Amino acid sequence: MADMKSGLEGVVVAQTRMSKVVGDVGQLIYAGYDIHDVAEHASFEEVAYLFWYCCLPNQRQLASFEDNLETRRGIPFHVMDLIRATPTVQSHPMSVLRTAVSALALGDPGSNDISQASNLRRSADLTAKIPTIIAAHDRHRKGLETLGPRDDLNHASNFLYMLHGRVPSEAETRALNLYLVLLADHGFNSSTFSARVTAATQSDIFSAVTSAIGTLKGPAHGGATETTMEQLSDIGDVENAEAWYTQARAEGRRIFGMGHRVYNTEDPRARHLRQAATELGDVTESKWIKIAERLEEVAKQDPYLTDRGIYINVDYYAAPLLNALGIEPDLFTTVFTMSRIVGWTGHLIEQYADNRLIRPRSEYAGATDLKWEPIEQRG
Amino acid sequence: MADMKSGLEGVVVAQTRMSKVVGDVGQLIYAGYDIHDVAEHASFEEVAYLFWYCCLPNQRQLASFEDNLETRRGIPFHVMDLIRATPTVQSHPMSVLRTAVSALALGDPGSNDISQASNLRRSADLTAKIPTIIAAHDRHRKGLETLGPRDDLNHASNFLYMLHGRVPSEAETRALNLYLVLLADHGFNSSTFSARVTAATQSDIFSAVTSAIGTLKGPAHGGATETTMEQLSDIGDVENAEAWYTQARAEGRRIFGMGHRVYNTEDPRARHLRQAATELGDVTESKWIKIAERLEEVAKQDPYLTDRGIYINVDYYAAPLLNALGIEPDLFTTVFTMSRIVGWTGHLIEQYADNRLIRPRSEYAGATDLKWEPIEQRG
Repeated sequence: MADMKSGLEGVVVAQTRMSKVVGDVGQLIYAGYDIHDVAEHASFEEVAYLFWYCCLPNQRQLASFEDNLETRRGIPFHVMDLIRATPTVQSHPMSVLRTAVSALALGDPGSNDISQASNLRRSADLTAKIPTIIAAHDRHRKGLETLGPRDDLNHASNFLYMLHGRVPSEAETRALNLYLVLLADHGFNSSTFSARVTAATQSDIFSAVTSAIGTLKGPAHGGATETTMEQLSDIGDVENAEAWYTQARAEGRRIFGMGHRVYNTEDPRARHLRQAATELGDVTESKWIKIAERLEEVAKQDPYLTDRGIYINVDYYAAPLLNALGIEPDLFTTVFTMSRIVGWTGHLIEQYADNRLIRPRSEYAGATDLKWEPIEQRG
Repeated sequence: MADMKSGLEGVVVAQTRMSKVVGDVGQLIYAGYDIHDVAEHASFEEVAYLFWYCCLPNQRQLASFEDNLETRRGIPFHVMDLIRATPTVQSHPMSVLRTAVSALALGDPGSNDISQASNLRRSADLTAKIPTIIAAHDRHRKGLETLGPRDDLNHASNFLYMLHGRVPSEAETRALNLYLVLLADHGFNSSTFSARVTAATQSDIFSAVTSAIGTLKGPAHGGATETTMEQLSDIGDVENAEAWYTQARAEGRRIFGMGHRVYNTEDPRARHLRQAATELGDVTESKWIKIAERLEEVAKQDPYLTDRGIYINVDYYAAPLLNALGIEPDLFTTVFTMSRIVGWTGHLIEQYADNRLIRPRSEYAGATDLKWEPIEQRG
């Protein structure tokens, strides 16, 4: 078949009002607003409102919306039981999060209701509860007491509090808020697409978000931030960055945190993450941020990358930024989930409003005329 | 954008050696074998072997394969805990199965290993454990003692034993085996596609299968068998079938169990399910099978359906067949999962062997030039 769309690269599947990605000029728009504008001004809660209601809230709307999210942060007993029954070793935080989010559907009388009112309510629920799940599991596996959410802290700040057991500094809260804002949506990326494929059978929002979490987990998608951190650990010291780069290139190894399926110029989110990482690095004296800065300098001088449009992507500075917030590498993709959940649910609200089965075809490449031999006659 | 592939209808995404579906002639091939041949001869275990190893087993291979599956039927303690902690009301069996399958990754040291050896092993694990999960949850919600698997019974028979607490008759085992064989794969259906989208980010097999379960749950996919049973209940008696049909058509309502995105002739699996349902119906005196037979007679005489290539699909006789096996309607999609798991995992083994990100595009349909107003100035 001549018309095979391998990987669906460049195939347009649907319309969206969520975000626009223009790869060749490095542009990203969130529901009408340029990402640079959003990065400068937005709270994560405002971005959630923007995606779900397609406009910015006024002061009263935002206060009520924040209050609503705060009241939803607690998680049901059976989900807490599940977290506490999780084996403390060999349980990847993304596998735990995928399981716990799936479990949020259990006992919920409206879990199969795919009306817009139900989906808006459950979008708020998922967004509010995911940080609680992540922090509860991290403390469970460390043998620490789990901490309930605090309703006097905003989304970013409350998460760091539940994780670390101390109220974070303003600089830390600002850095995490920026990360959450920047990662919140990005066109038809694989996890968003998988959420839509699941929803397109009229399955429920918990199923769709569970699919998205499993998809984001992959090292070729959300898992890449964790891999980027491993790369920094591998380099180990700012002094080694140039030699490490030269050797990696000589061996034809891939450099993580660089290159993107859609962008062939610098990812517009990278600038803000670089700046935030640098600012936070100055406070926390993170050597990883220094290594990242040095490695980027080296890579920028390599025409092999620049000729091919390979620049740093969103993972590149996200890794040392999250590290500087005291977040362990195997939690990075869960924190990505904390952000992207508002994009997924926004896309799902769109999908359910005009739903249609997403069912492509395959080309069969095997035999067609074998005869079923009785088992006694098989070799 | 002129080239929008809404629903990806007709778009070819990848090659496969698993199954071939030819909609206009009603042909279905499993890895080289015509479905009619498979339906007549195969055990479910043979089909699993065929999909995972791309050939039929000889006697020794099959015996060893069956033994391997039998030994994997038990489920880990934390998954049993999860089932027992599940709220007994408002927990759809598909939501429970999605959660429990996701939880199988926890504590598994190889859960992120996507090598072929690991995937073959975990395919066997998932196939063996899914029936145990379904039966354990059903008995938990009914307040009955859960029953461990029996290694002297085959896949179909052991499931009915764990569910009902009695060893099924040969006729019952044969009917369930046939159902499991017929539903095991079907090209790039939505759930299989969602499993591949998840795996394509190099995420693990538990993530991919969890996505597939959530996708299968939808009423426009696997959930349709349950809806078809509701339709039979709604008709209530064979005497009412004709009048019910006439009214449904007059009101423009959709008839469930008829029509298919790919087939515009009779689904080749329907013939075998009709025959098996009729045979089982004679033994169990099921009125639902009689109603289904009568409704089909009526529908066949309606040129509105035949002119449009709308015939009965695989759900049509699956619903009363599963009902005659004492399986409750809200378990139907879980039993579909018991079957399709071998197709999903076969596709996943293919996908991982030649993996490539599945990432389409969207067309942005919103504004692009809004200015972020300070919140004080918003209306």
